[in-house]
Amino acid sequence: MVRALNFSAGPAALPLPVLEKAQKEFVNYQGTGMSIMEMSHRGKHYDAVHSGAKARFKKLMEVPDSHEILFLQGGASLQFSMVPINFLKENETAGYILTGSWSEKALKEAERIGRTKVIASSKEGLYRSIPSRSEWSDEKGLAYLHITSNNTIYGTQWHEFPDTDVPLVADMSSDIMSRPLDIGKFGLIYAGAQKNLGPSGVTVIIANKQWLSQSTNSLSKFLDYNTHASADSLYNTPPTFAIYMLGLVLEWAEEQGGTAGLERKNKEKSALLYDSIESSEGFYSGHALKESESHMNVTFTLPDQDLEKDFLAKASEHGFIGLNGHRSIGGCRASIYNAVPYEACEKLAEFMNSYRKNHPARSFTFQ
Amino acid sequence: MVRALNFSAGPAALPLPVLEKAQKEFVNYQGTGMSIMEMSHRGKHYDAVHSGAKARFKKLMEVPDSHEILFLQGGASLQFSMVPINFLKENETAGYILTGSWSEKALKEAERIGRTKVIASSKEGLYRSIPSRSEWSDEKGLAYLHITSNNTIYGTQWHEFPDTDVPLVADMSSDIMSRPLDIGKFGLIYAGAQKNLGPSGVTVIIANKQWLSQSTNSLSKFLDYNTHASADSLYNTPPTFAIYMLGLVLEWAEEQGGTAGLERKNKEKSALLYDSIESSEGFYSGHALKESESHMNVTFTLPDQDLEKDFLAKASEHGFIGLNGHRSIGGCRASIYNAVPYEACEKLAEFMNSYRKNHPARSFTFQ
Ligand SMILES: Cc1ncc(COP(=O)(O)O)c(C=O)c1O
Ligand SMILES: Cc1ncc(COP(=O)(O)O)c(C=O)c1O
Ligand SMILES: [Mg+2]
Ligand SMILES: [Mg+2]
Ligand SMILES: [Mg+2]
Ligand SMILES: [Mg+2]
Repeated sequence: MVRALNFSAGPAALPLPVLEKAQKEFVNYQGTGMSIMEMSHRGKHYDAVHSGAKARFKKLMEVPDSHEILFLQGGASLQFSMVPINFLKENETAGYILTGSWSEKALKEAERIGRTKVIASSKEGLYRSIPSRSEWSDEKGLAYLHITSNNTIYGTQWHEFPDTDVPLVADMSSDIMSRPLDIGKFGLIYAGAQKNLGPSGVTVIIANKQWLSQSTNSLSKFLDYNTHASADSLYNTPPTFAIYMLGLVLEWAEEQGGTAGLERKNKEKSALLYDSIESSEGFYSGHALKESESHMNVTFTLPDQDLEKDFLAKASEHGFIGLNGHRSIGGCRASIYNAVPYEACEKLAEFMNSYRKNHPARSFTFQ
Repeated sequence: MVRALNFSAGPAALPLPVLEKAQKEFVNYQGTGMSIMEMSHRGKHYDAVHSGAKARFKKLMEVPDSHEILFLQGGASLQFSMVPINFLKENETAGYILTGSWSEKALKEAERIGRTKVIASSKEGLYRSIPSRSEWSDEKGLAYLHITSNNTIYGTQWHEFPDTDVPLVADMSSDIMSRPLDIGKFGLIYAGAQKNLGPSGVTVIIANKQWLSQSTNSLSKFLDYNTHASADSLYNTPPTFAIYMLGLVLEWAEEQGGTAGLERKNKEKSALLYDSIESSEGFYSGHALKESESHMNVTFTLPDQDLEKDFLAKASEHGFIGLNGHRSIGGCRASIYNAVPYEACEKLAEFMNSYRKNHPARSFTFQ
């Protein structure tokens, strides 16, 4: 089998050894005569998978004892609602920093629940950057401050997280486990698994236990984080196979040198592509400003839309998958999550360089 | 490989040919060099899987054009909240018929949202039966009437669905697709997939489109059925692999003669076990009253708890999996969903018969 050059934004590439291991034991898990997906979520085999994934995640991500780890369903999108349902009380205000489409969606859901305030936004600058601290309005007294650590669509990323006195909530869907992290800084982190952690269908939450205990929600037992925290994410039937896959991805991540090893590799990968863009004399132009460039999603455009279309078509002919930008903004985007190999990025950089060399005239006449 | 004799209540046995097919194409889906779980939910391969599963489900379940099919996350438990959030308006009352623990949980979530009324209950009779129509209080003017079509824990099942003027809502988690069904009778049906449809992680909803359009929910875009209906269950990233597996299970179900063929087989399977119980001269005693017996979950007890423990231990030694009753009520339970083979039920019936023959004395001395 020739592996595809998969740059999809999510669901995205998974590590090949993980897929091969899961394939091998897919029908007959550990000689039981059953698939792991046929087993009770309250039996001993699945229990080992469930608690194993949690323990691995805790160790790898250095989650302190002050924080709880939850495996939920509904994707990051359900978290847009669950966060304010649990933490935005009457007469309180939640702060949002807008750095892209996903932050906007998170804000919109919070607006349905209670009072909100935009603390900073880079929208006027076409979401090319992360607003610097000096541009924020005052966040004092907020119920929480919500940020999006990596902006999947625009290709920008927070490279440093702010110190703040209010609980910091981060949507880390597209860069969780891509680098070491000081979890203690956060009230709550959430991430759909389908980019860096595993298949779609499971969402990982890391939450400060003390803050959790202060949450109020009388609306729904299921939508209460405490329900899942006190049941160890087994309140109802969890997405067992997705959590099993997550566990295998975590095992693989350990072998890559953990978050420090993954960060090193991710920086090398993104450097290959940003170098191709920067050395292209304006043929490729990156969307993100230098200091806000994402190591997960590299976004760029070509001199005109016809050329962009041709570039994407030729890339597709050469076997590159998923390079089109998000349907909401167009352009090109290479998503290079943890499991995307260095070699695939090398091939893409080479392809970008050679494509540019074959189109030197057009790039200047078409302006 | 020797297949396990898997009588788990859910997650439960899947058809072996389905598992084998999924294993074969797990790493390299249709020669693409990618797993189906690595593919964008907006790309052509997954699109065929998604729309294929929906079309197959529509055909197999004879879902009329008046009804929408949704693939959501969160399990049946999230539906306990979503139903009243969408359909229980202020000044309205929702009716619930209590036939077991799951109906009680559904009711409790509705109580958080609005006014409720218990229209009938078999709780006093230890949930051994489905209340007959003559025992109901008046359901006129209700926002909807909620029932649980099969009571997974107690082992009872509705064998006929009532005609009523109010929208009928049914939790069919543990008997969906086990028999032909007149969908037109229902306002909304929901079912976690992990018993009859596939792996855990996807919940199937069938809803009357006109009723959907009357739903009101300003709380959360994600929790609004209409959000998912208008996006064809692609509003956010769906659990792609679970839906892929669901599609394969539907393909297999077609080969079993559809819902009529499955019903025939399920009745034969349950008859084997109920016969063992009935012919046991009181050694095994079934929990459900005859007319309410479930064809999906066969529940029974032994003369005393020591014997029950011994029975379960011996059964386990003989390779039978998942025969213990739900932790909330104890006893024994054989879950015999669509994918549990006739031969496995035969073996269990034989085991029950021979176990009884080896314990004739104890069964009467221990009373
Ligand atoms: C940063 C971010 N947040 C949220 C989402 C939505 O995630 P989900 O589809 O799991 O709801 C995405 C999906 O791409 C994302 O990139
Ligand atoms: C009838 C019924 N309803 C609801 C549930 C809960 O389903 P889930 O775990 O998908 O939330 C179950 C689980 O066994 C069930 O049998
Ligand atoms: Mg974005
Ligand atoms: Mg995206
Ligand atoms: Mg029950
Ligand atoms: Mg159950």
